[in-house]
Amino acid sequence: MKGPKPYSKRFFRSDSRAKPQQSERGAGVKIPRDRVIYGIHAVEAALSNPKRNILHAYFTENAFAKLGEFATERGIGTSILQSAEFDALLGSGTVHQGAALHVDPIPQPRLEDFLAALPDAQGAVLAMLDQVTDPHNVGAVLRSAAAFGIAALIVQERHSPPLTGTLAKAASGAVEHVPVLAEVNLSRSLATLKDFGFRCIGFDSDAGEPFVDAALDASRVALVFGAEDRGIRRLVREGCDAVYALSVPGTIKSLNVSNAAAIAFYEAARARSGK
Amino acid sequence: MKGPKPYSKRFFRSDSRAKPQQSERGAGVKIPRDRVIYGIHAVEAALSNPKRNILHAYFTENAFAKLGEFATERGIGTSILQSAEFDALLGSGTVHQGAALHVDPIPQPRLEDFLAALPDAQGAVLAMLDQVTDPHNVGAVLRSAAAFGIAALIVQERHSPPLTGTLAKAASGAVEHVPVLAEVNLSRSLATLKDFGFRCIGFDSDAGEPFVDAALDASRVALVFGAEDRGIRRLVREGCDAVYALSVPGTIKSLNVSNAAAIAFYEAARARSGK
Repeated sequence: MKGPKPYSKRFFRSDSRAKPQQSERGAGVKIPRDRVIYGIHAVEAALSNPKRNILHAYFTENAFAKLGEFATERGIGTSILQSAEFDALLGSGTVHQGAALHVDPIPQPRLEDFLAALPDAQGAVLAMLDQVTDPHNVGAVLRSAAAFGIAALIVQERHSPPLTGTLAKAASGAVEHVPVLAEVNLSRSLATLKDFGFRCIGFDSDAGEPFVDAALDASRVALVFGAEDRGIRRLVREGCDAVYALSVPGTIKSLNVSNAAAIAFYEAARARSGK
Repeated sequence: MKGPKPYSKRFFRSDSRAKPQQSERGAGVKIPRDRVIYGIHAVEAALSNPKRNILHAYFTENAFAKLGEFATERGIGTSILQSAEFDALLGSGTVHQGAALHVDPIPQPRLEDFLAALPDAQGAVLAMLDQVTDPHNVGAVLRSAAAFGIAALIVQERHSPPLTGTLAKAASGAVEHVPVLAEVNLSRSLATLKDFGFRCIGFDSDAGEPFVDAALDASRVALVFGAEDRGIRRLVREGCDAVYALSVPGTIKSLNVSNAAAIAFYEAARARSGK
């Protein structure tokens, strides 16, 4: 029977508060899909986020050498696993890079509380995804959101992937930086955003109106994107102040949603830098 | 024992040249990973591409109702499979959407032949990926390349995923539209590009120089992107005329490569539209 590999002493400082556990966790344990963070960047960012409650850490020896100190410094129980044990823990084919965490979700504010906490005169760019379900895409959108200083991402509670696993890996740490506000009704969220002075701009390849830079000049803007096949749903579209299509001169007329979002975030950042 | 489900007559016109096969293909067959195209958009685009040689088509009944006609019109042998048989064919967890093709690769030109065939005065935008290995990313780059009219994608032969499977699904049909030129030595490719009048522009989050629109004003430009963790390798970087960092004001300082490419393609298209 294979258990977790005994840890090597050289990985530990004598004052470390927690040492890798060798038996109670490891092969045979399964982390629920909506409670796992894996991949070097995602794990490092979670370990560096004081708001993130972490129940247990799993590393290969190599990954432990890179990241173990962060875990032991926080007093997080840690197991050293062999590669095959990682497959048992996460499912084979998972690109875990030898690092995984069993985590609690980060508490997220409600939209109204988030907006009420913005200083009155402060501009902000928010993003909204209308039922985008592919975790690679949502993760990539979050990563770009963190890169371009998007203040929060609004999603529909019932049709969004958990902020863990594939999504968190694709987000490359951005789940720790960008608040994700899960709302019941996105049309109502748009109305709330307008109450707080946000101009709500949809992006949809079917829109008749070509995008122009000036569309993002407002101090507070919310950028709305739909699922790849359906685009933005009718009621959400009607809740937008305007809906634009990005100009795509080539043979394929619609962009991957994370690529469309990256361009829109880039344009919003450009508009705000005064270029 | 489960075999392929017998096809329903209603799916066939009486003059169809090929009818679904019921026994010689189906459960138990495995398509090599570098010869499979799956997903509705990717399969539809392959069926519509006269340059694409297709050995066999596999559909669920639902997908056959949408796409079967394209296959039978081309005289392609077709099997109707049940969902569980698709899992056996492609591996469970594959998002095949009920449609898969066993294909030959599309013959791709050599870089020099491709460049020599461009009319002398004609501008063009090319893209180059330096050892980007994630098939989701390369597929997403191809899709944006098709959307923004990028003339071809150059990759390194030995460190690139096959233009099938996950990559082709993420490319959403773009593997049928954008030539992908596999080169042995990318530094040499950059020298060749310069011989043909291309200005070679690298994008790298570590570059000291911030990107400015004017960088893409040349009539012929090649846009170069590196792998996510390593960026552009030194020799490739030295082969570029200039290397820029896209301005990212937020907490994460590097973009997913497909998002960086989408922004660069968008900027190149904008520069060429005279905006």
